[in-house]
Amino acid sequence: MSFDRLIKKIIETKNPTVVGLDPKLEYVPDYIKNEFFNADGMTLKAAAKSIFLFNQLIIDSICDIVPAIKPQAAYYEMYGHYGVKTLEKTIRYAKLKGMFVITDGKRNDIGATMEAYTSAHLGTVMVGDTECEPFAADALTVNGYLGTDGIDPLLKVCAEKDKGIYVLVKTSNKSSGELQDKLIDGTPVYAVMGDMCEKWGENQIGEYGYSSVGAVVGATYPEQLSELRKRLPHTMFLVPGYGAQGGGAEGIAGAFDKNGLGAIVNSSRAIMCAYKKENCPETEFAEAARREAIRMRDDITSFINLK
Amino acid sequence: MSFDRLIKKIIETKNPTVVGLDPKLEYVPDYIKNEFFNADGMTLKAAAKSIFLFNQLIIDSICDIVPAIKPQAAYYEMYGHYGVKTLEKTIRYAKLKGMFVITDGKRNDIGATMEAYTSAHLGTVMVGDTECEPFAADALTVNGYLGTDGIDPLLKVCAEKDKGIYVLVKTSNKSSGELQDKLIDGTPVYAVMGDMCEKWGENQIGEYGYSSVGAVVGATYPEQLSELRKRLPHTMFLVPGYGAQGGGAEGIAGAFDKNGLGAIVNSSRAIMCAYKKENCPETEFAEAARREAIRMRDDITSFINLK
Repeated sequence: MSFDRLIKKIIETKNPTVVGLDPKLEYVPDYIKNEFFNADGMTLKAAAKSIFLFNQLIIDSICDIVPAIKPQAAYYEMYGHYGVKTLEKTIRYAKLKGMFVITDGKRNDIGATMEAYTSAHLGTVMVGDTECEPFAADALTVNGYLGTDGIDPLLKVCAEKDKGIYVLVKTSNKSSGELQDKLIDGTPVYAVMGDMCEKWGENQIGEYGYSSVGAVVGATYPEQLSELRKRLPHTMFLVPGYGAQGGGAEGIAGAFDKNGLGAIVNSSRAIMCAYKKENCPETEFAEAARREAIRMRDDITSFINLK
Repeated sequence: MSFDRLIKKIIETKNPTVVGLDPKLEYVPDYIKNEFFNADGMTLKAAAKSIFLFNQLIIDSICDIVPAIKPQAAYYEMYGHYGVKTLEKTIRYAKLKGMFVITDGKRNDIGATMEAYTSAHLGTVMVGDTECEPFAADALTVNGYLGTDGIDPLLKVCAEKDKGIYVLVKTSNKSSGELQDKLIDGTPVYAVMGDMCEKWGENQIGEYGYSSVGAVVGATYPEQLSELRKRLPHTMFLVPGYGAQGGGAEGIAGAFDKNGLGAIVNSSRAIMCAYKKENCPETEFAEAARREAIRMRDDITSFINLK
């Protein structure tokens, strides 16, 4: 009923980063794809199987030094139900390897429908008298545009099953300000949404001071990161936009508290495609991913006070 | 590149309604569930197969009088990848029967990730040199909190493949006002979002005056429905909240233009569970769904001028 489980793993690994698994097929080395294409043809099934093996090998390579993965649902849905099966298997495999899993689904709806999303991604579902756990992630990203009705079902499962959510507050993209920066009685929409996160989480605060309700705040907006860190003392941040999108480690430092906690920074493409940047043999993609994960960890921790 | 295909079907059936397929397992009659439980046990697979048969029989029963279905993604994800396969099959079956399919997924993200959602739900995906169509819906509901970066990839596919989107503007739930009713320079957030819909759709307006960018506006807010109808002349509305959530047909009338067009009203549970309300044998669930679909059509068209 807080982000303590994740924060403990961050302290243990001395690494406040998460590896985004957003596996476009073009990121997967040919030697893997060809194996599955030969067996199943150029099909969604073969694509999904290639991606699962790619994910497994990356997880094997980083699981002792990185606390969490963040699979992005879109890249699995792109391969239909075969892709979604790979999402399920990736989550289970990462948990087996001791990692914390944040499904990046940005789900949102109301009432019974939000309960269905919650059961799907974080909870359990009854089929007759059997309790099933469809996706079994530890945390889910969500969109709060619909207000409290869309968040309440999540809070219940966060409390009962020790899970967490990250609500979109200030996103990393260029046009995020079109709505999020607009002022409501002098306060930007993103801060209004941030205040709602503090309120939603007020009864689920853990031993490090952070609740089960986190916020997504982009690395591309360092001023807002620092401002929101002060404004939202109980809200842990998930920070996308490092590297590829242009957010630097120095600017990200403002997302952390004085103990170097309170945020986790995501990198996806730079890690999955490290072997392309290094120009090393494609069979070494997993080792290259580990090297980039270490480089990122060291870059970010050099600016914060994580002990 | 507009909602003309859907509007033509509405005119043809003289029916501006859509049947929401949000199939909780408890809605599925026992005689169907037991068949699959006997074969596959009480598993996600058996649940998903039950739901597909339930959907098929409802589609068979209504496809000549209802223009569209709206499967709600959450109720399929709830049964894991088996459920997602049922979503795929339901969409394909409804299209085979001539219906227009709106996937209610409220998806949202930015850049390449939004492209992935777009390819998944409305477009195509390349696997090697093979073009695959994962979900193949005609339209998708989306959340616009992230601004234009999250909408642009959809607009491209709307134009190229004659698809549509509905952006959340004023949702039907009680707490929708927490953010959506707040004022930005005197204009509520929902109207600001509505104005963005008009702008996003401005280059994709069809012969009935509506673009490929629609808006979700809840039946539970009749004043806002009428206000937004005037404010957003090129934006077609998807109207949830009729019946079960308390929105009446008279209040919904304001969502339509003077020709009885410009909106489509959803009903889910009242149609799927009509057999429970009628207290008829469960084997007649599909006929009961048809009777309720006709009652709803007649209720709504009695207040509008659809010829």
